[in-house]
Amino acid sequence: MSLDRLIKGIVNTQNPTVAGLDPKLDYIPDYIKEKAFAQYGKNLEGAAEALFVFNKGLIDALCDIVPAVKPQAAYYEMYGWYGVRTLQRTIEYAKSKGMFVITDAKRNDIGTTMQAYANAHLGTTEVEGESFAAFGSDALTVNGYLGTDGIKPVIEVCQKEDKGMFILVKTSNPSSGELQDRKLDDGLTIYRTMGNMCEKWGEELTGQYGYSGVGAVVGATYPEQLGELRKALPHTFFLVPGYGAQGGGAEDVAPAFDEKGLGAVINSSRGIMCAWKKEAGLDPQNYAQAARREAIRMRDEIVSYIGVITI
Amino acid sequence: MSLDRLIKGIVNTQNPTVAGLDPKLDYIPDYIKEKAFAQYGKNLEGAAEALFVFNKGLIDALCDIVPAVKPQAAYYEMYGWYGVRTLQRTIEYAKSKGMFVITDAKRNDIGTTMQAYANAHLGTTEVEGESFAAFGSDALTVNGYLGTDGIKPVIEVCQKEDKGMFILVKTSNPSSGELQDRKLDDGLTIYRTMGNMCEKWGEELTGQYGYSGVGAVVGATYPEQLGELRKALPHTFFLVPGYGAQGGGAEDVAPAFDEKGLGAVINSSRGIMCAWKKEAGLDPQNYAQAARREAIRMRDEIVSYIGVITI
Repeated sequence: MSLDRLIKGIVNTQNPTVAGLDPKLDYIPDYIKEKAFAQYGKNLEGAAEALFVFNKGLIDALCDIVPAVKPQAAYYEMYGWYGVRTLQRTIEYAKSKGMFVITDAKRNDIGTTMQAYANAHLGTTEVEGESFAAFGSDALTVNGYLGTDGIKPVIEVCQKEDKGMFILVKTSNPSSGELQDRKLDDGLTIYRTMGNMCEKWGEELTGQYGYSGVGAVVGATYPEQLGELRKALPHTFFLVPGYGAQGGGAEDVAPAFDEKGLGAVINSSRGIMCAWKKEAGLDPQNYAQAARREAIRMRDEIVSYIGVITI
Repeated sequence: MSLDRLIKGIVNTQNPTVAGLDPKLDYIPDYIKEKAFAQYGKNLEGAAEALFVFNKGLIDALCDIVPAVKPQAAYYEMYGWYGVRTLQRTIEYAKSKGMFVITDAKRNDIGTTMQAYANAHLGTTEVEGESFAAFGSDALTVNGYLGTDGIKPVIEVCQKEDKGMFILVKTSNPSSGELQDRKLDDGLTIYRTMGNMCEKWGEELTGQYGYSGVGAVVGATYPEQLGELRKALPHTFFLVPGYGAQGGGAEDVAPAFDEKGLGAVINSSRGIMCAWKKEAGLDPQNYAQAARREAIRMRDEIVSYIGVITI
């Protein structure tokens, strides 16, 4: 009922990073695409198959050194239900390899509808008395604009199934400040107010390492706010996007960690997925090994700022 | 590039309502479920088939008198990719019957990721130079917490494909005020600030009837705020949930309309889908006719407050 399984994975691998699986066709070596198109056609189904084969190779190459993957739902939905099937297969495969899976879907709604999302992504769906895990992920990103009615149903599923969530607090994009940085009449920013709500909601999902099951998304592109929030939200684990391609470096994400090297997991998507394109003369068949090398480089870079991670 | 097609449908049918398609297995007559389970099994696939057959019957019974349907993505995702396939088939079928389709998915992200959502739900996805509509809906609900970076990609797809969006402004749930009603340091509430952003974003998607392609979600359960926002946001069309089961009545939604009877579309989900359960002695085979009777009752009740709708 918390993010403890993720934390254990981070400590075991001594690696506080997550590999974002946001595959675009451009990122996939031709030999994979050609085979998938030959089998299923140059269409949504063929593309979705290529995505899965690509992901599977990455998961095989990363699973012993990276504790978690974060598939981004949008890149699967764009291939229709074929793509959504690839999302499900990717989650299942990553879990079979022992990885913690965070579905980045930023879902939000209220009451029974939010319950349906929570059941879909983290829990189970009942059909005539039997339970089925539709997607079976370990954690879900959530947007808290609708207040407690939108979070409570996720908390309930997390309690029951030992799962967690990450709520958008301060996002990594340039315009995140338009709303999130605005100050309320009590002098607090909206992002800080949302962060405080995470701490409060987290009281219902306490974990054994000091962090609750209600994490927060805080962008690597705002290191000052990362440090402010790390101090202000001692029980809230951070999912930090924006490292690498979006401009955040290891020194920018360092403030996200506590003195034990815990408190955050840093995401890299493009940097890992497209590593093979940056190695001159690399046989594209070895794309996954290039991803592994980049994941190790990223791990070492971040760990050089935080030292040994302990619980 | 606006919501004009929805507005035309409302005027043609003289009906400012949308039928929410948020099907649960409990809402579906046994004869439909039994057939689907016999064909596909008592599992996610069988359930997803029952959902589609149920929806199809409703669409057939409503398409000449109700201008739009609003499938809620959560109720499809809970049946995994089988459910998501039913969402796609439902959208396709409703469009083939001339209905305007609003996918209620409250999607939100930034940059290329939001572009992927916009392409998935409203636009097209390219595979090797060919374009495919993954879901092909007419409008999408969107959460604006991430600011312009999360809206701009949707605007671009709407411009290109003549589609629209509805951004969450003041939601219908009891806890919507926790964040949305908080006042900023300039004295405006967050929901009003978000509403003002809708007006601004809408300038890039102007329509010919005075309303832009950037609509707002405003709950029927807050009639005072509905009236305030109608005056403050003259170019923003409202999608109004919360009528019926959530407690809003026709008098509560009346402030959402302008003097021409335009400006809003009122959603009813459970009221229409479950109408057959409330008619004593009804043969469940006639569930769709009961839905039609409820849709007419709702239409007449609302129209009695606003009169003839003109453009």
